[in-house]
Amino acid sequence: MRVAVDAMGGDRAPEEIVAGALATRSGTLEPVLYGREEIVGPLAGGLRVVHADEVVAMDEKPADAARTKRASSLFAVCRAVAEGDADVAVSAGNTGALLAAGLVEIGRLPGVHRPAIAIPLPAPDGPTVLIDGGANADARPEHLLQFGHMGSIFAEDVLGVAEPRVALLSIGEEPDKGNRLVREAHELLAGAALRFTGNVEGRDLLAGAADVVVCDGFTGNVALKTLEGGITAVMGGLRESLGSSLRSKIGGLLIRPAARKLRTRLHPDTYGGAYLLGLKGLVVSAHGSSSRVAAANAIRLAARGVEGGVVERVAARLAESRGHSSG
Amino acid sequence: MRVAVDAMGGDRAPEEIVAGALATRSGTLEPVLYGREEIVGPLAGGLRVVHADEVVAMDEKPADAARTKRASSLFAVCRAVAEGDADVAVSAGNTGALLAAGLVEIGRLPGVHRPAIAIPLPAPDGPTVLIDGGANADARPEHLLQFGHMGSIFAEDVLGVAEPRVALLSIGEEPDKGNRLVREAHELLAGAALRFTGNVEGRDLLAGAADVVVCDGFTGNVALKTLEGGITAVMGGLRESLGSSLRSKIGGLLIRPAARKLRTRLHPDTYGGAYLLGLKGLVVSAHGSSSRVAAANAIRLAARGVEGGVVERVAARLAESRGHSSG
Repeated sequence: MRVAVDAMGGDRAPEEIVAGALATRSGTLEPVLYGREEIVGPLAGGLRVVHADEVVAMDEKPADAARTKRASSLFAVCRAVAEGDADVAVSAGNTGALLAAGLVEIGRLPGVHRPAIAIPLPAPDGPTVLIDGGANADARPEHLLQFGHMGSIFAEDVLGVAEPRVALLSIGEEPDKGNRLVREAHELLAGAALRFTGNVEGRDLLAGAADVVVCDGFTGNVALKTLEGGITAVMGGLRESLGSSLRSKIGGLLIRPAARKLRTRLHPDTYGGAYLLGLKGLVVSAHGSSSRVAAANAIRLAARGVEGGVVERVAARLAESRGHSSG
Repeated sequence: MRVAVDAMGGDRAPEEIVAGALATRSGTLEPVLYGREEIVGPLAGGLRVVHADEVVAMDEKPADAARTKRASSLFAVCRAVAEGDADVAVSAGNTGALLAAGLVEIGRLPGVHRPAIAIPLPAPDGPTVLIDGGANADARPEHLLQFGHMGSIFAEDVLGVAEPRVALLSIGEEPDKGNRLVREAHELLAGAALRFTGNVEGRDLLAGAADVVVCDGFTGNVALKTLEGGITAVMGGLRESLGSSLRSKIGGLLIRPAARKLRTRLHPDTYGGAYLLGLKGLVVSAHGSSSRVAAANAIRLAARGVEGGVVERVAARLAESRGHSSG
């Protein structure tokens, strides 16, 4: 299997990305590096390098990138998937631009209203998939229904969850709680061929209350960043309080290994990134700050998505369920 | 000043609520207890008790409560404000029912589209007010504009922030980021007589990036509960990792006072609860799990809201700004 890796994308590219790719090379997995040959070549350690002239900046507007940066490594990895040169694309670059590249180069699966971003969150007994993590700021109920199907297949095929429990993110457990979008989506999900378990709340995201949590991209992105901010605030606050006395300083030294373990569990890198679902090929967006470990995790999970046939299964499921959906 | 206190509302009522009320009694502040006389009377320690026959359950539907529980302590405290028997109402009971009671008994200020829930969050250098925390699951851009005005007055008068920075919760800093509601609200806020500082993201909520953060009630409630869940996950995860070795157990004992201080700072009780703004009288919703300390904080902050003239100032500001608002 061939994984097209954007060697130039991410805050720590190319060094960490290339090192991560090297770590995943095996008899069955061939990472191919896309980027400026003169920069990537010397690091490649024998991996194949495909030259791409341009680089998309982390803060570049997706629409601008789509207009002016088709020659970039970020667009090139998606084109490689579209043209059959690779089985899956991985980039730690600009997520919005990657979504644009996926749409422009690979295109939507027939019947998919909107591709969505699936993000595994670190619940204690295995990941909970949040979908949509930010691809669609405005969504309709039938989009949320499709997100439920796509998230369920992803949880099954990539994360190995049998019969995933699919829930809807709302502000109360009762079906009539939430905004209009969520109340209408609740009805659609309840009638779908899915293991729909009802509404969950923000406090359930890290508690393992469901395997897949469905929401629009605005709500999902707010929730993800709020979670990130909350975790940072506690960790930072703890570090600060520990400096306040000799007693707590010593305590802080003693708990350091345990705290580090916790940080690793809760760190976004642990699960390797976000998955763009609903395209005619698989694209994985690794965290922007990806280290070599995170990049390697992302590449391996991307490969698992190919093995599980996520794209084909999403296509089949959406074709099946089209009768249930209103548009 | 007289504060009508719902002695029966909250998970730890009546004992903790009454004890909190007793702690706030002073030459200028008279808490009056509403609830079943036979239960509250023996605890009242000389505070005046007004009998109310019914109790609203924590999980009762607001609409049901409004239909069948007008004789409850929760509705009685709001009626006391409406009838001039009290200057402000405080309840640790069902927030949705309290909002219904505020609407039914006290009513909206003229010109207010929708009352909103303002919640002070524990940022490091003083609270950040999130508004709306859950009163309006569906909101229009002009509602968000009013939330900005109400939140700004609240931050000034109750929390003592000079010229509060008002921001909009979105999924990127640029004005064109967000869903349709947020993009339209951004324009209205940018044109308003407010110190509007643009968009913030979920990760900024506990970072002190703004004094007031405006959002619809669905997004606000998801963010609040996500924050709660994130903090709980880190604290719980830390406790668990600390049990994993003797070394970290000893470290855990040493850091206990520092961790407790942090927990107090981040705990929702610290700022005493949520404020229902936009009504013809002031209503404060203390956290459901309020201890005596939290109840006392809520009562004192409620009194500060009366002293600051929050209701009158909200009324004046909305009358002033009505020219800017489209409906």
